[in-house]
Amino acid sequence: MNDPAGREAFRVQLESWQARMESALDSRLPGPEVVPARLHEAMRYSVLGGGKRIRPALLFAAARAVGRSEEEVEGAACAIELIHVYSLVHDDLPAMDDDDLRRGRPTCHKAYDEATAVLVGDALQTLAFHVLTRDPALPASPAIRLRLVELLAEASGSFGMAGGQAIDLAVQGKQLDLTQVEEMHSRKTGALIRVSVMMAAACAPSLDSRLQEALAGFASPIGLAFQIQDDLLDVLGDVSTLGKATGADSERSKPTHPSVIGIEASQERVRLLHAQALDALAPLDSRADLLRSLADWLLSRHY
Amino acid sequence: MNDPAGREAFRVQLESWQARMESALDSRLPGPEVVPARLHEAMRYSVLGGGKRIRPALLFAAARAVGRSEEEVEGAACAIELIHVYSLVHDDLPAMDDDDLRRGRPTCHKAYDEATAVLVGDALQTLAFHVLTRDPALPASPAIRLRLVELLAEASGSFGMAGGQAIDLAVQGKQLDLTQVEEMHSRKTGALIRVSVMMAAACAPSLDSRLQEALAGFASPIGLAFQIQDDLLDVLGDVSTLGKATGADSERSKPTHPSVIGIEASQERVRLLHAQALDALAPLDSRADLLRSLADWLLSRHY
Repeated sequence: MNDPAGREAFRVQLESWQARMESALDSRLPGPEVVPARLHEAMRYSVLGGGKRIRPALLFAAARAVGRSEEEVEGAACAIELIHVYSLVHDDLPAMDDDDLRRGRPTCHKAYDEATAVLVGDALQTLAFHVLTRDPALPASPAIRLRLVELLAEASGSFGMAGGQAIDLAVQGKQLDLTQVEEMHSRKTGALIRVSVMMAAACAPSLDSRLQEALAGFASPIGLAFQIQDDLLDVLGDVSTLGKATGADSERSKPTHPSVIGIEASQERVRLLHAQALDALAPLDSRADLLRSLADWLLSRHY
Repeated sequence: MNDPAGREAFRVQLESWQARMESALDSRLPGPEVVPARLHEAMRYSVLGGGKRIRPALLFAAARAVGRSEEEVEGAACAIELIHVYSLVHDDLPAMDDDDLRRGRPTCHKAYDEATAVLVGDALQTLAFHVLTRDPALPASPAIRLRLVELLAEASGSFGMAGGQAIDLAVQGKQLDLTQVEEMHSRKTGALIRVSVMMAAACAPSLDSRLQEALAGFASPIGLAFQIQDDLLDVLGDVSTLGKATGADSERSKPTHPSVIGIEASQERVRLLHAQALDALAPLDSRADLLRSLADWLLSRHY
C-alpha cells in the first residue's frame, strides 16, 4: 500500500478495532473481585491492556467482506483472542519458552506464579468455547455456533496450534528443510490466523462457495507470511518497539525461515505469499478492501 | 447396598462401561504415529490404560434413566473424561501438586517432560470440545450439542473445576470452615461430577422438567459426597490399592472435610448426602436403579 492517506485511514480503523476488543474482552472476562479473585485478576492481567489483536482484526475485516457486522462477530473475535492469549501464557512458562516479558510487562507466571499461569491458560481456553455457546450477539443459529466451536477446536488442538507448539519444542537444535519449517508454522501460527478468517465466513453460511474459497485462498498464505514476518522481526527488530526479547529464536536454535533460507529469501517469500493472498481475494472485489489493507499492514509492520 | 448379588451385577456393569470407555477413548484420540507423534503418544499414555471412569459411569447410568443408549452418549462421556484427565495432567505438574505417580504409573511430566505435559493437558481440553461437535453417534441436533459444549465449559472453567483448583492452591495452610471447604469442593470436583449427570439429561431435552430436577437433585450431593469420600481415602486408604500417594493432603496442609470436622463426622456427612441423593431420585422410580447402584458403590469404595 503506497497510499499514505489510505494507510492512515487503516491505522485509525485498526485502533478502533483494538478499542472495541479491549471493551469486548473486558465484558466477557469475570470481574477481578469475583471468586476466585486471584485467578480472575490474573486472567484479566493476561488478556487486557494491549495486544495488537491481529486475529480479531482479521475476523472483523473478513466479516466485512461477507456482509456481517462487527457486533455480530465480536463474540467469535473474543474467542479467538482468548485462545491466542492462553497459548502465550502457557508458552511463556519456564518449562516452555521461559519468557519474562510480554507486551512490555512481566509474563503471567512472573507477575503471579507458575501454578496460577497454568490455570489462567486452562481457564482462558475454556472461556473461549463458553463464549461461543452463549454470546448474545453472535448469530443465534445453534448450527453456526457449533460450527464455530468446531473450527476453533480444530485450529487450536493437537492438529493445529498445540500440535505446532509440540513440533516447535521437538525440533529445537535440529536441522529442518523449508517444507518442514513451513509445516510447523502452518500449525503453530497459521492455523489460528486462518481460522480467524474462516470463522467470519462460517457466520455467513449462505455465502457463495466461490467466495468461501476466495477467503480460504487468502487465509492460508497470510498465516504463513505472518509467521515469517514475525521471525524476521525477531532477527531484525529491536526490543523497545517489540516489547519482548529479540534474537530469542536463534538463542534457542529454533529453525525459522531466516535461519533456513536466509533473510533476503525470507523477505522474498513474504512478498510472494502476500501477492498470492491478494490474488485469491479477487472474486470478493471491493468487499475485501479491508482485508487487503490489513494484509499490507501485517506484512510491512515493524513490531 | 446390602445385596451381594446386586453388588456383583453392578461390578460387572461397571467393568463393561470401563471397557467401552477404553475403546471409545482410543478411537477418538489421534494414533500414536500421527504427527506430532510424541504429543499424541503422551496424550494416549495419559488417557488410556485404566482409570475408574467414574464420570462416564455416571453419565451412562443417567442416560439409562432418561432413555438414552450408551452409544448415543458415548461421545459426551469421552468429552468429560478428556477434561478430567487434562486436569489431572496439569494438577500433577511440579508447579501444582508435584505428583510423580498416577494410576500406579509415572505421571505425564515424569514419563515425558514438563513442556509436553502442559501441551498434553491443553490439547486434551481442546479435544473434549472437538468431540462434542463432531461425534457421529451423539444426537445430531446442533442445539443439543451446543448445550453439551456450554454445560461442559461451565463446569470446567474458572467458575467450575479450574476455579476450584485455584481456590485449592490459595487456601493451602489456611484455616477454613465447613462452608468454605464445601464451596471449594463443589467447584473443584463437584462441578464435573454434576455435569456428568446433567449432560445425559441434556441429551433428552424433551424430558419432563420434574425428572430433570430429580437428576439435578441427585447430582449435587453426589458430587460433594464423592470428594469427601476421596479425602477420607486419602487419610485412611493405603498406597497399594489407591495407586497414588496417600496422606498427601495433610502433608500439603490442604483443608479437607476430615481435617476440618474429623473422620467420623465426615463419614456421617457422606451418609447424609448419600441419603439425600437417593431421595431426589424417587420420581425416576426403577429407571434410576443404575444410578442408585453407582451411588452405593461410589460412596462405599475403598480405592
